Amino acid sequence: MARPSSPILSAEKIARTALELVDATGEFTVGAVADRLGVRPSSLYNHVSGRDDIVEGMRALMLNHTAVMPDPEATWEEAFPRFLRGYRDAFARHPRLIPMITSQTVMSEPVMRMYGVMATILRRSGVPDDLLLDAITIMDSYVLGAALDVAAPDEVWDSSAATSDAMRAAIQAAPTGRERADRSFDIGLRVVLDGLRALTKEQIS
Amino acid sequence: MARPSSPILSAEKIARTALELVDATGEFTVGAVADRLGVRPSSLYNHVSGRDDIVEGMRALMLNHTAVMPDPEATWEEAFPRFLRGYRDAFARHPRLIPMITSQTVMSEPVMRMYGVMATILRRSGVPDDLLLDAITIMDSYVLGAALDVAAPDEVWDSSAATSDAMRAAIQAAPTGRERADRSFDIGLRVVLDGLRALTKEQIS
Repeated sequence: MARPSSPILSAEKIARTALELVDATGEFTVGAVADRLGVRPSSLYNHVSGRDDIVEGMRALMLNHTAVMPDPEATWEEAFPRFLRGYRDAFARHPRLIPMITSQTVMSEPVMRMYGVMATILRRSGVPDDLLLDAITIMDSYVLGAALDVAAPDEVWDSSAATSDAMRAAIQAAPTGRERADRSFDIGLRVVLDGLRALTKEQIS
Repeated sequence: MARPSSPILSAEKIARTALELVDATGEFTVGAVADRLGVRPSSLYNHVSGRDDIVEGMRALMLNHTAVMPDPEATWEEAFPRFLRGYRDAFARHPRLIPMITSQTVMSEPVMRMYGVMATILRRSGVPDDLLLDAITIMDSYVLGAALDVAAPDEVWDSSAATSDAMRAAIQAAPTGRERADRSFDIGLRVVLDGLRALTKEQIS
């Protein structure tokens, strides 16, 4: 049997194509995605309902690229550090997608399932209901900010432009490149997770 | 005296114009900035050295828009919470600038002065040199992630798509809109700053 001359369309393929455009230009249009796939825009609408749906598809792709998903039966310690590191790594490869996905209500079904699991683990760990969304938001903010930090250049601060002894000492004492980003991320993730745990204990007692 | 027919160029005016383009499209080119200012691209080079310099100009604009700058003589508690909230607010109005400034080495003189002050306050508070850049990076990551959260829609998660009781309870118990973002930010900022303080004490003792 002959192969089809153009690869078969799917919502995921459309999302992957839109992501290539976002990586390259910071933006995408439905028309440009169709062009790149060599199809008419109307063909895309058999697979996605529109622009928002494509953004949700890109959001879901980031989960596909996350190394370890949280297990609803896992403890906080088993679930979060490894999952959040993988989630950061997925977004670090697509920094320009970040402000796009944060500017739209989360609707993607697999992503909502992931948040559902996060909430379940937090609640079972004793986080009171009125602190659940705060805990999720704080983890999200820290991890997405850290993803941008991974995507930063090897030298984040121009050391020759340092204006204080303390800043010169800071740059000199720190590693550079990915080692710097990973070290800071791990310390900060520990700070965030331990702090949320402590807050939970405070609220319960 | 007649007014000049086009407003006088300056590095700041160029940065403001580039920022309008980034807000609208996620991107800018030197040519498009010149077009918008009604001048030839070559005229811009009397004020800026090129694209990177314009990015640094936009980075510096965010400091101009930050309500309270850290005072080098201030204590940690006096300096950071108010400054970091203002810094978040400045970036929250320009979410698409965020991945652009994090992808370039910080060279802007006023911004380097701000980091210089942050390092000075941290060092005087007892943060050891090899933890200074981590502390700055962790604050930066959290605050830039939180700026994106402020720019999120009123409803961040589609509650009708929640997949677990815990996520439904989380959404129901939380405020919406700016109140939600501010509440989570304040809790998270407390977690981050207290955690960094605790870490400092641990390292010193």
